[in-house]
Amino acid sequence: MKHLLSIEDLGGDGITALLELTDRFVEVSERRIPKVPALLGKTVVSLFYEDSTRTRLSFETAAKRLSADTMNFSVGTSSVNKGESLRDTVETIEAMGVDAIVVRHGSAGVPWQITGWVDCSVINAGDGGHEHPTQALLDCYTIRQHCGSLRGRHIAIVGDIKHSRVARSDMLAFVAMGAEVTLVAPQTLLPARLDGWPVKVSHDLDAVLPTADVVYLLRMQRERMHEMLIPSLREYTTCYGMTAERAARLPKNALIMHPGPMNRGVEISAEVAGLVNAVIIDQVKNGVAVRMAVLFLLLGSGYGLANIVDAVPTAEGGRQ
Amino acid sequence: MKHLLSIEDLGGDGITALLELTDRFVEVSERRIPKVPALLGKTVVSLFYEDSTRTRLSFETAAKRLSADTMNFSVGTSSVNKGESLRDTVETIEAMGVDAIVVRHGSAGVPWQITGWVDCSVINAGDGGHEHPTQALLDCYTIRQHCGSLRGRHIAIVGDIKHSRVARSDMLAFVAMGAEVTLVAPQTLLPARLDGWPVKVSHDLDAVLPTADVVYLLRMQRERMHEMLIPSLREYTTCYGMTAERAARLPKNALIMHPGPMNRGVEISAEVAGLVNAVIIDQVKNGVAVRMAVLFLLLGSGYGLANIVDAVPTAEGGRQ
Amino acid sequence: MKHLLSIEDLGGDGITALLELTDRFVEVSERRIPKVPALLGKTVVSLFYEDSTRTRLSFETAAKRLSADTMNFSVGTSSVNKGESLRDTVETIEAMGVDAIVVRHGSAGVPWQITGWVDCSVINAGDGGHEHPTQALLDCYTIRQHCGSLRGRHIAIVGDIKHSRVARSDMLAFVAMGAEVTLVAPQTLLPARLDGWPVKVSHDLDAVLPTADVVYLLRMQRERMHEMLIPSLREYTTCYGMTAERAARLPKNALIMHPGPMNRGVEISAEVAGLVNAVIIDQVKNGVAVRMAVLFLLLGSGYGLANIVDAVPTAEGGRQ
Repeated sequence: MKHLLSIEDLGGDGITALLELTDRFVEVSERRIPKVPALLGKTVVSLFYEDSTRTRLSFETAAKRLSADTMNFSVGTSSVNKGESLRDTVETIEAMGVDAIVVRHGSAGVPWQITGWVDCSVINAGDGGHEHPTQALLDCYTIRQHCGSLRGRHIAIVGDIKHSRVARSDMLAFVAMGAEVTLVAPQTLLPARLDGWPVKVSHDLDAVLPTADVVYLLRMQRERMHEMLIPSLREYTTCYGMTAERAARLPKNALIMHPGPMNRGVEISAEVAGLVNAVIIDQVKNGVAVRMAVLFLLLGSGYGLANIVDAVPTAEGGRQ
Repeated sequence: MKHLLSIEDLGGDGITALLELTDRFVEVSERRIPKVPALLGKTVVSLFYEDSTRTRLSFETAAKRLSADTMNFSVGTSSVNKGESLRDTVETIEAMGVDAIVVRHGSAGVPWQITGWVDCSVINAGDGGHEHPTQALLDCYTIRQHCGSLRGRHIAIVGDIKHSRVARSDMLAFVAMGAEVTLVAPQTLLPARLDGWPVKVSHDLDAVLPTADVVYLLRMQRERMHEMLIPSLREYTTCYGMTAERAARLPKNALIMHPGPMNRGVEISAEVAGLVNAVIIDQVKNGVAVRMAVLFLLLGSGYGLANIVDAVPTAEGGRQ
Repeated sequence: MKHLLSIEDLGGDGITALLELTDRFVEVSERRIPKVPALLGKTVVSLFYEDSTRTRLSFETAAKRLSADTMNFSVGTSSVNKGESLRDTVETIEAMGVDAIVVRHGSAGVPWQITGWVDCSVINAGDGGHEHPTQALLDCYTIRQHCGSLRGRHIAIVGDIKHSRVARSDMLAFVAMGAEVTLVAPQTLLPARLDGWPVKVSHDLDAVLPTADVVYLLRMQRERMHEMLIPSLREYTTCYGMTAERAARLPKNALIMHPGPMNRGVEISAEVAGLVNAVIIDQVKNGVAVRMAVLFLLLGSGYGLANIVDAVPTAEGGRQ
């Protein structure tokens, strides 16, 4: 496996294998010195055409824990401003001796395009409203961690399904792992066509709550209001916001998830964000380990997995 | 000791201990390879809500010399722009596996708030007009380096005391170390109440010069003129600017200090900045060693100080 | 040799020696772990007053492959905004313990000025319309790689000679290496005086093509049109753009070069950029190795070159 572009590249078996690999890196992350030399000498570049400190730092942290070098191609200060084409930018980055490009771009499909231009690995960190596969993987990992398995679980994805790459990748991953998915949103925030997708649709969050094992809240972007897709944020919150009152009607131990950054008071109340079954911080934490697993899978060939356990740099300079 | 929020956390004995620890790191900084593995595997994040390459780079250099990983959470390109709360930002950063957050924020008290939300160490790199403890420590170190001790020394702090976190932290530290402090400023740039502070106040720099062992010049911010706190920069310079003529009236060997960046021609003339007793560059240099000592104190538990001397990575890969 | 400010610092023999040193680092760059510990403990700062991710990342990659620490003094978020002088900025950076400053600035001569203020090494990464010596070195290396030698080769430099530091450094380097140089441009894009420069001048690209071993295309900056130096980009492209039709009239194996970023469709057509003898990506790739050689030459004293071959960190933590 060379690239990670879509959840569909992995399928159910691929996702399962990756979650098992992630277990190893969760263990590494809990060590006193949470580093392994698996990717020593490799270089990982982040190429973000949209702002995202959160995802970028998660990938950078993952790369550094594997002893890779990281570089940040910040678009704001780059040749892109001088009118350079995406292709020339990417070919230039690769020519400097890069092993993986982690790319976020506002247009769907850009990561696929890039694989046609370069020999290095490409990881999709979000392409337009299309996919965000590492988010789906860390979400699967978090659900598996708390519920044991996704099989047969009922997961409600709530909010702006139409424009959300998180929703799309999550839906693909959750279904591949055997979960039952219900999309909950007003009609204007659902995709125009859902034919053939093995998911249910509901416009009534309150009807879905009593049977949900997981409620996955999407970030409500204020732009959607200006686009007249919702009458007001307040009305959205009234119908689809996760309040303490709604959280109380969930089954015991049901998880509340959110990809962050949260709009407290819009899609989630401050009180709910602090509940013990709101596992948003676990998602962030697992994100680093999942991305370590992805980078190791794509770049770590030739480096035995067993060595991860055996070869640990210590403050004394040797191995534990 | 887990956090460094205020000079008051340390007291005179704490400051003395930290200055002695700094001696060790000054020695490390002078080595051919100025690095020790003390914080290998630790991650230090800088979270700056106000511009400051100077302080940020000083902390980053200090962290790297201790073999820690560093990350820069640049607010300009972060989720903060998407309306994320400070609390969510900080909890997200911590969840990625961070050992210390170095924070600068425009509001007083923010570093204290953060300690209530996270388990990692928090270092105050400037909070509003309140405190900037590592600046005070490097200032103490620089005075001790040149004068032997602060005890009984007469230190004049000159300029916009009212809005300056540097003045506040310095005053607390200098007094704790036994110095006599005189604040020199026009009435409009002094705090409204000084009751109980063990310092003298003067509006007449020329009267203070003949007895000053140290003159500490604060940066005059142009905004103060627009706020009508001073009639003009020119008048400020006439009354409170350190000119060559004034410098000549200082006692022999008296130090001239400035936290930088300097407004040459306003609070300090270009000629004075070049004098041999203007130790502004020493302050910057000592800043790295002081911050190494602070990071080591907060994060280096379990790593014997003796090892700093013994365990030095060499270009040959072994230890000297 | 302490600084690299101008191609004239090196001369023909110096350039030759540096290209031979570069061979070693090309070999290092092709290793599975492309790193050597030559500059362990050294710190290289990039201080860019003009946007350039391309050159900055190339230097950073080079420094990291030599195991140096890197810091990026981004001017946009720095004290420079607070009115700090260049001199104070540079002295502050040095005081933090820096071994080399890689500087790009809009004004010719700034790197020379800086050498008067600091003790560390200074590398000119572009000063106004004056010089860009590492670009010329990587261009020489690329020509030597493909043509064996520069001696006696006919190199046409095409475009905005007048404002181009690349043209100036390349011309000096190519002539020093024994090449014959023809500058090809409209009169308005040539320097006012060329007396004494050992180069030919032509306004007719088509007449030069049949005898050119290398055609070096400069980036056409859109600003030049607004300055009325050319009637339109379209007319420039008609007379001086490298089209497939023109490329076909070059001698067999003639090289097409460009410093990037390219304006496809202006000075070079998309078709030409993809030709096998368009070696633009080789230039980028060689840039990293050339900059490793420059950094090693300036900072690596005391570290035997032979060690570069012998001391290679491996993923197993030892040496190969």
